[in-house]
Order: sequence, then structure tokens, then C-alpha cells
Amino acid sequence: MENRSLVTIAEHSKEKILYMIEMAKQFEMNPNRRLLHDKVVATLFFEPSTRTRLSFETAANRLGARVIGFTDPKVTSSSKGETLKDTIMMVSSYADIIVMRHYLEGAARYAGEVAPVPVVNAGDGANQHPSQTMLDLYSIYKTQGTLENLNIYLVGDLKYGRTVHSLLMAMRHFNPTFHFIAPEELKMPEEYKLYCREYGIRYTEHTDFTEEVIADADILYMTRVQRERFTDLMEYERVKNVYILRNKMLENTRDNLRILHPLPRVNEIAYDVDNNPKAYYFQQAQNGLYAREAILCDVLGITLEDIKNETI
Amino acid sequence: MENRSLVTIAEHSKEKILYMIEMAKQFEMNPNRRLLHDKVVATLFFEPSTRTRLSFETAANRLGARVIGFTDPKVTSSSKGETLKDTIMMVSSYADIIVMRHYLEGAARYAGEVAPVPVVNAGDGANQHPSQTMLDLYSIYKTQGTLENLNIYLVGDLKYGRTVHSLLMAMRHFNPTFHFIAPEELKMPEEYKLYCREYGIRYTEHTDFTEEVIADADILYMTRVQRERFTDLMEYERVKNVYILRNKMLENTRDNLRILHPLPRVNEIAYDVDNNPKAYYFQQAQNGLYAREAILCDVLGITLEDIKNETI
Amino acid sequence: MENRSLVTIAEHSKEKILYMIEMAKQFEMNPNRRLLHDKVVATLFFEPSTRTRLSFETAANRLGARVIGFTDPKVTSSSKGETLKDTIMMVSSYADIIVMRHYLEGAARYAGEVAPVPVVNAGDGANQHPSQTMLDLYSIYKTQGTLENLNIYLVGDLKYGRTVHSLLMAMRHFNPTFHFIAPEELKMPEEYKLYCREYGIRYTEHTDFTEEVIADADILYMTRVQRERFTDLMEYERVKNVYILRNKMLENTRDNLRILHPLPRVNEIAYDVDNNPKAYYFQQAQNGLYAREAILCDVLGITLEDIKNETI
Repeated sequence: MENRSLVTIAEHSKEKILYMIEMAKQFEMNPNRRLLHDKVVATLFFEPSTRTRLSFETAANRLGARVIGFTDPKVTSSSKGETLKDTIMMVSSYADIIVMRHYLEGAARYAGEVAPVPVVNAGDGANQHPSQTMLDLYSIYKTQGTLENLNIYLVGDLKYGRTVHSLLMAMRHFNPTFHFIAPEELKMPEEYKLYCREYGIRYTEHTDFTEEVIADADILYMTRVQRERFTDLMEYERVKNVYILRNKMLENTRDNLRILHPLPRVNEIAYDVDNNPKAYYFQQAQNGLYAREAILCDVLGITLEDIKNETI
Repeated sequence: MENRSLVTIAEHSKEKILYMIEMAKQFEMNPNRRLLHDKVVATLFFEPSTRTRLSFETAANRLGARVIGFTDPKVTSSSKGETLKDTIMMVSSYADIIVMRHYLEGAARYAGEVAPVPVVNAGDGANQHPSQTMLDLYSIYKTQGTLENLNIYLVGDLKYGRTVHSLLMAMRHFNPTFHFIAPEELKMPEEYKLYCREYGIRYTEHTDFTEEVIADADILYMTRVQRERFTDLMEYERVKNVYILRNKMLENTRDNLRILHPLPRVNEIAYDVDNNPKAYYFQQAQNGLYAREAILCDVLGITLEDIKNETI
Repeated sequence: MENRSLVTIAEHSKEKILYMIEMAKQFEMNPNRRLLHDKVVATLFFEPSTRTRLSFETAANRLGARVIGFTDPKVTSSSKGETLKDTIMMVSSYADIIVMRHYLEGAARYAGEVAPVPVVNAGDGANQHPSQTMLDLYSIYKTQGTLENLNIYLVGDLKYGRTVHSLLMAMRHFNPTFHFIAPEELKMPEEYKLYCREYGIRYTEHTDFTEEVIADADILYMTRVQRERFTDLMEYERVKNVYILRNKMLENTRDNLRILHPLPRVNEIAYDVDNNPKAYYFQQAQNGLYAREAILCDVLGITLEDIKNETI
């Protein structure tokens, strides 16, 4: 049997993305479907990520699966010098599927290659985080009714932000126009702009984050500007309060605008935005549950038809 | 729908307390009732409390629910600067109910106000611990056949002891007589004595802990005298061996006397008491399971009738 | 009811060992049997052991049980000064069975004596680790078709290796010939050689680990040679690369030879051995799941017949 591991969403075709959105829709209608009632899901977090772990574990549980795993790398056999391969082989002999977060780029692809069971990448270093991208795509689709021809604004840390890079690549199928809004030190890297040009994706760049700039946005995707990313702390002090979305900046924006954020936020979205109907980040987090249920089913070969037929 | 969060037992009416005791009774007859088979319970422990966590998780599991959560605050997004509100909003999008332990007083009430799902307070700082109170009430009821007109002796740390304060307030409906036995530094605070006078609760105070003092006790509620509570360590050394219950002190006590302790104990109950039929603290811990099953059901709107009708 | 705790495999009769192998066989045919669907299993790890914990938790889950527990002793009430007895009494009031790993020798026997529910020893200090022994026996039986009259080579740290000691004792029923291959500092202790002589078990001793020595082995049981075991680090440097199994050493070995290792390995089995059909350590780990399902059932009084009759 083909190994169905999910390492990156970049490998998914347009059809596959739309198919998985249909799967997620089914789970939004009813998240409790015991399709995995005889399965064990292992969640291996070599670095902590409570949000992602809880979301995957909820997805597994609502599908009727049981969960085993660890959250603290210091407590594992890795600390005794065991290789990642041996850990993966061991866990594969217990579980039907492995959800893995690792601090090293490429760890997920390697695990997917050696494991006899499917591996789902829950983030590998600064590299990929495909379940986040899947829930972002689902959130955009749900709020805009389509993924096609949208004006998408990416704001904040575009240099290190794994989520914005993955989203950019996944959107190549859907003729988007991107707007990159970032301080000089955190600009979108050249390789992703090259990627845009290769795939004919339009983009503009801004260092200002103002009402005027975002006037025609369909999606405003905010990210954290983290102090530790700056080599020049003076520069951090200068920009940290510039890339904050405040409620009054939303007055003249489009009705269909929705604000996304991968969370956790620190201060880059002011709290007065939370009650604005355009704020969508908490629902976005909830969409993560449906997207992850779809992913767990997909890597196990469960189809949209199977999902529709299972209503407990 | 009304938010049914449980922040403090002090808000419960006499009828509600007796109703929940009836619910707990059902669970003692049969703890395995799959009333929550389609529910996910999140246990968020911002400070560790293994006993309380295991008890709630057992309750959730015996009700057929699935459990997600964390036990180590250092590992959560809080450490990235996320607010409690954002954490609660995120978890609410995954789980049907939140059981929360927090080191700050008032955290449970705040969480209950912002969460779209019910929140059960599993202890917030020195403030409230309602599930402990509920299991104490159930234990008293079971062993005495009533909650009315009892002689209740509270022994040890009455100044910082969250459990004795909550028990005192919850008992106001039942015409108790309280006896406070504590060293000078750990006396029952003035505010709780004021509370007694307001509600017409009789009380006496003692610094001696002797056979004579406890002769007519129905309930002897022991608590830990912790070294770290003392500003004067000489005083601690003086009293630490005074507030120890020994088996020979129980010879002339009432037949119906039962000894409670919220556990863990260190040395305040001598081990020779364990086999005395008046020792009840381990059964009391077990009653915690039934009380917590009742609480989880109650905040989700499940009634006594529902419980009786569900026998797997 | 008799307490059915599993403290050591040494107490099992030959018949009992063979009976449990039959149970494990059933679980290998179908690991998902909901025999414990109304049970709660507590996994209490007073020292970390991710591999053993995940294996037991998978076993419990595949039997339909629910799991509670802790993995970090610092987070428990033990750190508040609670005795092991009190912790065990408390957990017994929640769970139907306790799986315990403890850093102290004898802790499991003590827990088994005080607990009202069965206790399964998941390793107590340098003492016993019976579920490891059970999976070793099952692995030997499966690969050799019998436990009788085998040539078993134990290699590496025979002084501190808990698993080799337990295996040696359990094999006394089956007329084995043992070969002890170890550096001087890590030789099989005198007490186990005495044990062999008492039970008429043949053994030889070697300090060389060469192709010639292992020519007639049926089972090659490799263990880690850990730096921290050596008082003389020069000696460690000298031997660490001697006790490494390399693929080319296997050329003239018997066809039925199988290589076992309790895992995790560090470097004592070269990676080129992994694809050799005689390498069996990953399947051995998987056998741990079936052996542990058998153990959990056995301590709860579930019979081979019960297992055969339950096919979901």
C-alpha cells in the first residue's frame, strides 16, 4: 500500500485541496463520527505545541480513535541517544498513525519514509505545518465562498512565518493577489517572491500597515512580530507597535473582509477587534478541528463517501 | 442557553446541594454510565494537582467522554504571552467542557464568563475548590445519614485551608455547630467567623487538640499544617506534633464519628488510624469520583432522571 | 478475591508462562478486543519510560479501557511528602488496575500488597520488569517454535541488565544453554550463576564477542553498554566498540537465529543489521503490545477462553 503520509500541502493538487475542504465541511456538520473507532493515534511532540496537540487529539477522539503520545522530548528515549528512526519504528508497532511535531526541518519527510504507518507533519522546524495551511484554506473558503481570485494580505513576520509561506504555496492554484506587509527585517524572503513569479502569482510589498493599504483586502492574515527575531532590538522597539491591527482601521474595509491569525497572538491584534464581525481567528481555530479530522481520515484512506455514510 | 459553569459551591441552594448528592449516589451504585459518550472534556491545569486531575479524568472517562488537556503551564502558549481569555476561547472551540485549575484567585470566574462552554473550577488559588466541597458534603451525608445538626470539628490550618472555608460556607443551610482547632498562627480568619455570625452558625475555638475536645464530634476534618505557612519556624516546630491525630485519641469518641482529610496527608494523621473503622479519608477520595461525575453532568444540563435512565 | 498483581515473572509456573503465550497469540491475531471496555487503567510512572508507558497505554486502549496517569514524579503529591501507600490507595479508588514504574527496588511488591486493585510492575529500580520478560519469551517462542532446549546468547551489560536477569530466571523451566558475553566490568553477577547451577541451567562465559563465539546461537540477546556503568572510563573506551553487532558477523550463523534487543539501542547493533532477516528487535517491540494485553487481562481474571470469545 502506498504510504499516505502528509508532509507538506504543497504536494496536493487543486482537486485534492478542494476534496479535503469537502471532507472538512462534513465534519463541521457533525464532528463526532466513529470512523477510527479501532485505531490508535500517536501524538509525538518533540517540541511543545499545546494548541496543535489539543486540536489533533480532539480530532482523533471525535473520530473515536484512542490517543497515546508524549509532549516532552526530555522524557523520551531520544534523551538516551535513540535515533528518530528507532523511535518511529517503535511507535509504528503500537499506533496506526503518527502525528509528529519536530524541531528539525525535514524530520517529517524522513519519518514518513521510514514509518510503516502514515505520518502527519504537525510542524517541522521552520519548514512546513500542513494542517495549519489546510485550516487556513478551509477558513478562507468558508468566509469567501471560494478560493479563487482573492486579495490576500499577509502582515507581520513574513521572513520566519512558516504559516504564511505554506499558505502562499498552496494558493498558487487559485489565482490570488498577495500583499506582503512587513518591516524591513522581516520581509518575505526572495525565494518565495521567486516562487510567485514562477507560478504567475501577483504580489505587492509594503512596509506601512495603514487603513489605506488594506482597503481592498478580502483576507487579512496577521502574524506575531517576535522580539527574538530581531538582531537589532532598537528596530524591534520601533516596529512592534506599528504592526498592530486596531478596530478603527477596519472602518472602511470591505464587508467580506475576514481577519485570520494562526494564534497565539500577543499584541498584534488589539482586543477591541475581537467583537468586530470581521474577526475570524477563533472560528479559524475551531476550523482546525474539522481540517484535522479530514487529514486523519485522508491519510488512512477514508473517503468523502465513507465520511458521509458514518453518522455515528 | 444559560452558562452553567461551576465556580463556587457557595452559590448552590440547599435544594441544589441535596439534588447533587442524589446524583452522586446514583454514580456510586454504578459509575460507568456513558452519558457523555460524544463529549470532549478539557482538563487545563495551570498548576499541577495530580489527585484532582486524575479524579476528574476518571469521572470523564467513566461517563464515556474523551479527555484532552495539559498539566504543565510551562508547556503552553501562556508561556508565549497568550492571555487566559485567548487560551479559553481556543480550548472552547475543541472541547464541550473545561475543567480548570489555576494559581490565581478569580481565574475560574473570569474563565466562566468568557467561555462559550461550561467551566468547572478545579481550584483557583486560595479561593474555591467546589468539587472538593461537593465530595466532602457527600461524604458527610453518607456517613451520618444527614447533613443537619452536626458537630463538625475542623483541625489544623484554618487560615489558608481552602477546603475548610468552602465547607463552612456550604454547610450554612444545615444548622451545623463548628469547632475550630488550630494553632494561633493558623486560626480561622475573622471574615469566616463573621460569616458564621451572619448566618447564625454556632462555633467554638480551641488551640488544644485533645481527646476531651473532640469527645462529641460527628465529623473530624483534618488538614495539613504546612511548614511554609509559618513566618516563625520556632512556632512551627512547637505545633507540628500537636496537631496529629493518633489512634488512642479515638477511644472515647462517638460511634458515628468519621475522620475526613482532603489528602495528601503528611503526618497529621498517624498511620495507626488507617485501620480504625472511623477513618474515612480514602473512601472520601473515592467519593470524589462520584461527586465529580455529578458535577460534569450537572454543568452540561444532564438531570438526575437522565442519570437513572442510563445504565450503559 | 485473591490479589492478582504481577510483580515478577519468576513466580510464574511453566504452565502459566505457556498459557500467557497462548493469550498473546490471540491478541496478535486481533489486538482490538473490548474486554476492558468498562475499566480504567492507571499508569503511574515515578520515573520516565516512554516506550513502556506507550506500550501499556496502547494495550489498554486496544482492550477498550480508558487510561489515566502521570509521567512526571515531580508533578505528583509525592513531592508534597505523600507516602507511596497513600498514593496507591488514592489511585485505587479511581482505577481498576495500576501499572506502576518506580525507581526503587521492591516498590512494586509493596504496592501490590497495599492496593485493593491489581498492580502490574512496569519496572522497579534494577529489580524486575516482568512485562519485558513476557514479551521476550513470546518473541523467542514465536521465532523458534518452542522455548525448549535453546542456545541463548546474552551480550553486553550482564551486570546491571534487569532484562537479562529476568529472562534467565524465567527460562529455567525450559532447559536452555546460556552464553554470557560481557566485558570484565559488566560480567553476569555471581548470584545469577549460582541460580543457574541450582536449577541445572548450563552456561558458559566469554569476554570476546566474535563470529566464532555465536556460531550456534538460536537467540542473540543484545543490550546497551552504558558509559555511566563504568568506574574506569578508559575501560569503557576500550570495550564500547567491541560489543557491537555488525551485519558481517551474521554470515555463518544459524538460519533460525534471531536477534533481540530490549531497545532503545544506541550503537550496539549497527544499522546495517536492521534489514537482515535475522534482526527481530522491532517485531519484538510490537510483541510487547500483545504480551501486555495478555498481562492486563490476566491480572483482572480474564481467561484465554474469554479472549477467544471476544472479537470486538
